Amino acid sequence: MRIIAAQINPTIGDLKRNTEKILHAIEIARQDQADLVLFPELALCGYPPEDFLLLPHFIDAVAKHLDIIVKATKGIAAVVGLPRETKSVSGKRLHNSAALIHDGQLEGYADKILLPTYDVFDERRYFEPGTSAAIWNLNEWTIGVTICEDAWQHSGLLQMMTYARDPIQELHQHRLTCMINLSASPYSLNKFPKRMEVFCKTARSLECPVIMCNQVGGNDSLIFDGYSLYADKEGIKKISRGFKEDFLSVDLDKPSQPLLLSQSPIADLYDALVLGIRDYFNKLGFKKACLGLSGGIDSAVVACLATAALDKSHILAIEMPSRYTSPDSITDATLLAERLGIDYQMLSIEEPFKSYLALLAPSFVDQPADTTEENLQARIRGMLLMAFSNKFGYLVLSTGNKSELAMGYSTLYGDMCGGLAVLGDLTKQQVYALAEWINRRGELIPRRTIERAPSAELRPNQKDSDTLPDYAIIDQVLQAYVEEHQSPEEIAEKYHYPLSLVKDLVKRIHDNEYKRRQSPPSLRVSEKAFSVGRRFPIVQGWVKKE
Amino acid sequence: MRIIAAQINPTIGDLKRNTEKILHAIEIARQDQADLVLFPELALCGYPPEDFLLLPHFIDAVAKHLDIIVKATKGIAAVVGLPRETKSVSGKRLHNSAALIHDGQLEGYADKILLPTYDVFDERRYFEPGTSAAIWNLNEWTIGVTICEDAWQHSGLLQMMTYARDPIQELHQHRLTCMINLSASPYSLNKFPKRMEVFCKTARSLECPVIMCNQVGGNDSLIFDGYSLYADKEGIKKISRGFKEDFLSVDLDKPSQPLLLSQSPIADLYDALVLGIRDYFNKLGFKKACLGLSGGIDSAVVACLATAALDKSHILAIEMPSRYTSPDSITDATLLAERLGIDYQMLSIEEPFKSYLALLAPSFVDQPADTTEENLQARIRGMLLMAFSNKFGYLVLSTGNKSELAMGYSTLYGDMCGGLAVLGDLTKQQVYALAEWINRRGELIPRRTIERAPSAELRPNQKDSDTLPDYAIIDQVLQAYVEEHQSPEEIAEKYHYPLSLVKDLVKRIHDNEYKRRQSPPSLRVSEKAFSVGRRFPIVQGWVKKE
Repeated sequence: MRIIAAQINPTIGDLKRNTEKILHAIEIARQDQADLVLFPELALCGYPPEDFLLLPHFIDAVAKHLDIIVKATKGIAAVVGLPRETKSVSGKRLHNSAALIHDGQLEGYADKILLPTYDVFDERRYFEPGTSAAIWNLNEWTIGVTICEDAWQHSGLLQMMTYARDPIQELHQHRLTCMINLSASPYSLNKFPKRMEVFCKTARSLECPVIMCNQVGGNDSLIFDGYSLYADKEGIKKISRGFKEDFLSVDLDKPSQPLLLSQSPIADLYDALVLGIRDYFNKLGFKKACLGLSGGIDSAVVACLATAALDKSHILAIEMPSRYTSPDSITDATLLAERLGIDYQMLSIEEPFKSYLALLAPSFVDQPADTTEENLQARIRGMLLMAFSNKFGYLVLSTGNKSELAMGYSTLYGDMCGGLAVLGDLTKQQVYALAEWINRRGELIPRRTIERAPSAELRPNQKDSDTLPDYAIIDQVLQAYVEEHQSPEEIAEKYHYPLSLVKDLVKRIHDNEYKRRQSPPSLRVSEKAFSVGRRFPIVQGWVKKE
Repeated sequence: MRIIAAQINPTIGDLKRNTEKILHAIEIARQDQADLVLFPELALCGYPPEDFLLLPHFIDAVAKHLDIIVKATKGIAAVVGLPRETKSVSGKRLHNSAALIHDGQLEGYADKILLPTYDVFDERRYFEPGTSAAIWNLNEWTIGVTICEDAWQHSGLLQMMTYARDPIQELHQHRLTCMINLSASPYSLNKFPKRMEVFCKTARSLECPVIMCNQVGGNDSLIFDGYSLYADKEGIKKISRGFKEDFLSVDLDKPSQPLLLSQSPIADLYDALVLGIRDYFNKLGFKKACLGLSGGIDSAVVACLATAALDKSHILAIEMPSRYTSPDSITDATLLAERLGIDYQMLSIEEPFKSYLALLAPSFVDQPADTTEENLQARIRGMLLMAFSNKFGYLVLSTGNKSELAMGYSTLYGDMCGGLAVLGDLTKQQVYALAEWINRRGELIPRRTIERAPSAELRPNQKDSDTLPDYAIIDQVLQAYVEEHQSPEEIAEKYHYPLSLVKDLVKRIHDNEYKRRQSPPSLRVSEKAFSVGRRFPIVQGWVKKE
């Protein structure tokens, strides 16, 4: 039996394009003499389709596109993920399903049983759980069919919750030829080893081969890494390419190949961000990006990632020095733009800055300079970037990182302007690590950009450390509080920080919720991003303002 | 039996303050010789607590505050809504519960059975459903205890879904003295008549009195109207005040008073917005608001609402005329500020505008003027408002309405700047209706502001109608597409609009998702707000760009 896992990159809601991809993969699989071609979870509409699922005319259109696929599936079998209407009179109106198609006939459906409703997942908002784990008798084979989360309860690796049911256990009584799994499992750092463990455990428990087909591609904040895989009771046997469309071909009857190891986590992180940028642009129909290049580490890394993701002739870096910008910053920004081979322009913000100061002087009489004047500079830069965006169709990349977003060390409507916050889910330390990795074969990002103390350069001799503790501390508290839900007391004790310091950082995280609520979407790379999957009120009295 | 429904206004997460409110209400009820005092759903932590529910140390603190309340409940019974840990080994870790307290003892819990997970509700993200409808034997009474949604399935009025279970039906076999319901049912236009019907139906089915205690107050985008009520099989007998804290006292043994009718929907809308503003400020600890006053209808209505919500000496209106601002606009804006008795200042944006044009001229050579220059003006205004905010601690109120947000007829980082979008869930037509209502006892908003054709005044002789169809059409399509999920084809047929027009409007709604994602929170007043409860991807291929 030959199975092909067609790791495709669907666009949310683009049923026509996704159907074409599915038909193309079926054709390839047929030419390859495969018996079965397997697609990711909700492949027909893309994952996550969010509230498109609530539109009856959308669900009707999904069903029509399924008809086209069924008719085209001659002489081969296919398993296609899609939402479908339930027959039930109560509960949610849809199942998250796999259509089981064979030789031009729709033979049935497998419905997802475990519906994740935590973090970035909202499946209970839309779906009713399936009643029983599906067995598909195809030719002489007995195939277990599961969808993503269905396989995870059995592994014991779920962190957010456990389920009362275990679909893998329910399949255990059957002698399966193989188990197939349709997934849309988003990338995050260190997710891949867990995913391998889940499917190895499944293969060992069921004593049969397991083929998992994962979605690939960026959809808003979520990046899907692909890495579809084939495991048997001995372990992982095959893994498809990460961060690209790919076909994983598995011959169940032949001795399997040794595992090709995947790349390093930092290489994955880089590829994830590049894919996230590329798909955000491609799927929106944008080609051109602009960004403010300051000479600092964050904008340098974003410029490198954008250059890798897009045609470098479509990238414009704008240097916008103020009276507080050091000559080194300009030198370093220019050097990087030249090394990358991207266009750059320089616009001094001095004149508009003076114009605002003059206009506001009568209202601000006797008021000392403070963050108001700092924010004015950052906002002038944001306005200039947006003017280029409006005039020439650039999508603005914002350059803030997760540590800054956590602390509110960023200017709303200033450096937070943009269509995509490329580094919004990377801590400052991860940004440095990525810079070093980008430079691994030779200096691209100027050494001084990496080594100088971080500064916003919005007042004379400003350093981030004037008002923030070390990023090492911020990043540790971020991890413990935001990702691991530890209390300030637990964090202070565990890491030997003063409790008052931890409490102050936690307070800053909550106080700046209002800023993050108005930030552009970030590319999610952690287990808990601010951009998606974390929901806290702006107005709250748990962590007090004073 | 005397029951008091304590319609309190909790702050999300402020366990100390909420506990004080609860203790105060228990004391009042005791003095009033009540037998039982009833609180809203999740009263101890406020609704919706969102991801605070995922913090173990938060749940521990809730339990500790419950202990304080239990000890204080001497000589009276109390029912207090709160999240509590389940004993179950699988599923979500919490129940959405009512603590049943009598004379200093915690006698048990009632757990919510129907967990809404649609629109603004995410209860399946946090909670495990209760197993059975709760009967509480208190003294000689048999009391059914339900929580919010538990009563709704029975009414047949749920639109988003139906449930397999009906807790009211499950209580039917019992001879109840009364049924009590703890609610956190958010305001929307026309929600109140439905809510009355739900509880009248409950009272008729159970053949017993029903007392529902609803939360009141604004929490971010959600406004809770209160209007706690008492119904029996004859209908509604008593309703508490809307949009204020109140105690609804019910004597089950005495003949009930005739119903006091509630106020008109437009009065409710006004009160809802005033409460939404007031609570956003009070609970955040802000006192001062500023806004741009343009002479147009939207900013005029926001100025009136803000003046009603806050101390008028804390409101600053800023007029920011440009070369395209008509003298009428300045006259009308000034007149309104004077009538409201609020401070106003005038700052011409001409100088910064010229400064930007000069700075950008070399880059924009040979480019015709377009929305870039319009947006520059809107963004200069946003920057000036934010400068006042930063320097003096004003919270900026943004003034855009839902019709504009739908169409993208607003400037990101310009007029969209602010901490709260007061009218972000009102259609343009609703804004006009509210203006007329504000003027019902005499002209406050200048007549010309209401009657002149809407204009952004960002280029010579600009009118909204240059680039938008009639607001009557936009608002109808918004209602049909966004709230009712009808297809463009259905809408075109039903309202006799050209299909191409409807499709263009629907495309604009989706194309501008990226702007709305960065807008400040709006106060929700409709069944489907952009700000909360509607989740569509930015990147999508269902409604095509071209």
